[in-house]
Amino acid sequence: MEKEFEKKQLTKKSKDFSKWYTEVILKSALADYAPVKGCQVLRPCGYAIWENIQKVLDEKIKALGVRNAYFPLFIPEKLLKREKEHVKGFSPELAVVTIGGGEKLKEKLVVRPTSETIMYEMYSRWIKSWRDLPLLINQWVNVVRWEKRTRLFLRTTEFLWQEGHTVHETHEEALKFVDTALKNYIEVYRDFLAIDGIWGKKSESEKFPGAQTTYTYEMLMPDGRALQGCTSHDLGQNFARVFNIKFQGKDGKEKIAWQTCWGFSTRSIGGLVMVHGDDAGLVIPPKIAPLHIVVIPIFKTEKEDRILKKKLEEAKHILKDFKIEVDERREYSPGWKFNEWEIKGVPLRIEIGSKEIKEDKATLVRRDNGEKYLIPFKELAPKAKKILDLVQKSLFEKSKEFLRENLREVSGYKEFKDIIKTKRGFIKAFWCESQRCETKIKEETKATTRCLPYDSLIESGKCIYCGKRAKRKWIFAQAY
Amino acid sequence: MEKEFEKKQLTKKSKDFSKWYTEVILKSALADYAPVKGCQVLRPCGYAIWENIQKVLDEKIKALGVRNAYFPLFIPEKLLKREKEHVKGFSPELAVVTIGGGEKLKEKLVVRPTSETIMYEMYSRWIKSWRDLPLLINQWVNVVRWEKRTRLFLRTTEFLWQEGHTVHETHEEALKFVDTALKNYIEVYRDFLAIDGIWGKKSESEKFPGAQTTYTYEMLMPDGRALQGCTSHDLGQNFARVFNIKFQGKDGKEKIAWQTCWGFSTRSIGGLVMVHGDDAGLVIPPKIAPLHIVVIPIFKTEKEDRILKKKLEEAKHILKDFKIEVDERREYSPGWKFNEWEIKGVPLRIEIGSKEIKEDKATLVRRDNGEKYLIPFKELAPKAKKILDLVQKSLFEKSKEFLRENLREVSGYKEFKDIIKTKRGFIKAFWCESQRCETKIKEETKATTRCLPYDSLIESGKCIYCGKRAKRKWIFAQAY
Repeated sequence: MEKEFEKKQLTKKSKDFSKWYTEVILKSALADYAPVKGCQVLRPCGYAIWENIQKVLDEKIKALGVRNAYFPLFIPEKLLKREKEHVKGFSPELAVVTIGGGEKLKEKLVVRPTSETIMYEMYSRWIKSWRDLPLLINQWVNVVRWEKRTRLFLRTTEFLWQEGHTVHETHEEALKFVDTALKNYIEVYRDFLAIDGIWGKKSESEKFPGAQTTYTYEMLMPDGRALQGCTSHDLGQNFARVFNIKFQGKDGKEKIAWQTCWGFSTRSIGGLVMVHGDDAGLVIPPKIAPLHIVVIPIFKTEKEDRILKKKLEEAKHILKDFKIEVDERREYSPGWKFNEWEIKGVPLRIEIGSKEIKEDKATLVRRDNGEKYLIPFKELAPKAKKILDLVQKSLFEKSKEFLRENLREVSGYKEFKDIIKTKRGFIKAFWCESQRCETKIKEETKATTRCLPYDSLIESGKCIYCGKRAKRKWIFAQAY
Repeated sequence: MEKEFEKKQLTKKSKDFSKWYTEVILKSALADYAPVKGCQVLRPCGYAIWENIQKVLDEKIKALGVRNAYFPLFIPEKLLKREKEHVKGFSPELAVVTIGGGEKLKEKLVVRPTSETIMYEMYSRWIKSWRDLPLLINQWVNVVRWEKRTRLFLRTTEFLWQEGHTVHETHEEALKFVDTALKNYIEVYRDFLAIDGIWGKKSESEKFPGAQTTYTYEMLMPDGRALQGCTSHDLGQNFARVFNIKFQGKDGKEKIAWQTCWGFSTRSIGGLVMVHGDDAGLVIPPKIAPLHIVVIPIFKTEKEDRILKKKLEEAKHILKDFKIEVDERREYSPGWKFNEWEIKGVPLRIEIGSKEIKEDKATLVRRDNGEKYLIPFKELAPKAKKILDLVQKSLFEKSKEFLRENLREVSGYKEFKDIIKTKRGFIKAFWCESQRCETKIKEETKATTRCLPYDSLIESGKCIYCGKRAKRKWIFAQAY
């Protein structure tokens, strides 16, 4: 048992979203502030969600033939500096080791903010021929990006992620991989975290430093701000040229390789908290929940308790295929326990007391909407499964609905500004794709281009800002 | 595909053990030297072994009720300095971050060499009452210890491990946990890595900085040197006092908590390589092997190949419960493939060529001793299982036998020195437990106390060095 649940009331989500967010994370024991500036501790409740995400995603990654590995935490400064755009993008955020074993280091070591440079240096040593390709490697690691303003899960100096880095013979093959990697992420978000979003291409100014093209999954948070869920990058031959990743092709000629990389981080848990949580605490989608069901016995008299104990054993047996906890602690009241497990977001609660025992039934309570069901004991397992499936589905439907309602297409800049001011949300609008307009819009509204949706068409329109010809509608939003 | 197998002959294990060790790791693509001093890259073949170890050990750890979490990589210097023995032990090995986000930091951050201090600072915030105990947390992370002389897997500046840290109401409960944690490790070594060893208590000078007592599993390498496999520590109340981990007991009184910690690292893979490898490369015990079986077709004519292709599909189906790879690459000869998979240590090879097809059989070859079996195709699965079990058992038997043969009990110091000089190995001898004798023995023979075996008896004897009364026999060896 970790720190006890604090019964103190939670701030209402609708009243102060930002305060609610921090409180719900601390009180549900997902994470805690660490005694290091900008860092957090991922507590067991939070880490268990990450482990479930890892399990799902790792399986998908391995199914593509990608293998896990581990590259060093430290990157020699000169290695990081090789790709110009890359170092420019990351240099303001670096943590640097200057002392090792009591001595000042001759060459400073950067704590990895991402691992392209150290991995590709190794790749260039390993790759000689087309026989060595594709090279498909992933790693699950911690990375460090020095952040001035931090926020639990969403922006911390250190975070956990997976970064996949692949090398291919052709651009076509690489592009296919960029696509598949993103599809995997979308499936994790939609099918497991139950969060709908929009996927597409990033603008030039928003892409990954060093990438040719960046693809993203953008989700909408309840306060109308966008959260970038993950990214998948077509690196083209940029890094391969700089790191000298060449191979002898089937035709005997030396060629430059094509590369991709893609990442998914613990930030996703922040999205999960924001999207599904409510005034009573977290709501965790069953398919990613560390615990499906909590059983809470309502103890009364000693005589009844003996029968109840038996019933609990029976319930454990019947529900053995679920991740279940029977909370038999005597030092807390049932009401206290209801609160605790609600704030922790367990999707289904089962109550068993004298009423239930008399009727050979159990009371089931859905976390997401509070609906109650009195179910014959022998129907417990199939009914629990049904309800959990329903919860999963209904959470996703709600998220889809929210996205639908808050995606607004506009044709005028005034309307654009009004919406950003009053409702935020995603705005779909023509943009001429010049960086000048993008910057101006950002300065004036704090909204940035989130992506060019995957299914966007070539149309004939006018840029929302400058009025010049524009051929595609982009998604804009204020973002986390 | 990673870097191709280099056909160049491997140094003989018996000829130059140390050179063989490095070569076999590089050539089997378990690991590679990184472009950072003292660091290595854990390549997919090596990381897959670590993933298997993680899977086995994580399950055992979770079965004890321990939950995984993640604490920050960086430890503020002042936190590390709180426990005097602890900081003394680790300060020569620290990597220190002094620059963050382009600015010189006011307080230096140490890259964790181990996580007691940062974890216990959080524990003191979380633990208030007996209701919060036991607190059982583990983390799988990277740690950094600045090393002057490094060696692949055995001693690298950064390595991966798990560190478990528990808090208990009583010393008795804590001691039980120290014991269980060590037992889990012993099971991983014996039942999975197939390496026998001796377990017991460390001497005062060899224990973990800050611990009350340290327990260890000591294994013997083929060159007669000991390898410490893992450690489990009874921390007593040392850290709890310093970090103020107190709780209100059931009797309402404030008490100081009891703690344990225990760790198992990627060093174990170095042991695995040394113990089982041979002149042809790695030999990986089936129960920890990323790949159980490699199937190598012997292609001949186009007509035969069609039948062979069918046969391979059949083999895949029959052997679907094993981790299997069918190596159909046309660009390499069967002989080349034999070498490659031998050096990678795959425990069982299956060859299928025209001879086998004619007789509806397959040739099975054991990696550990080269034994060949011609097996009817339909018996493939049960026979493969039998052979793999046999390989697992036989590797462990060999390790046990080696330990038995190289554990020598001596009563005189001259004999002690002779053995260390000529054969090394484990030496069992009376020691008076004074640090002076321990230091002298180390200076004169480079042998250190490895442990006081778990099953050691109180006897009446004389210290091997000073001749004074000694009551227990300790294990000595030169160690990695």
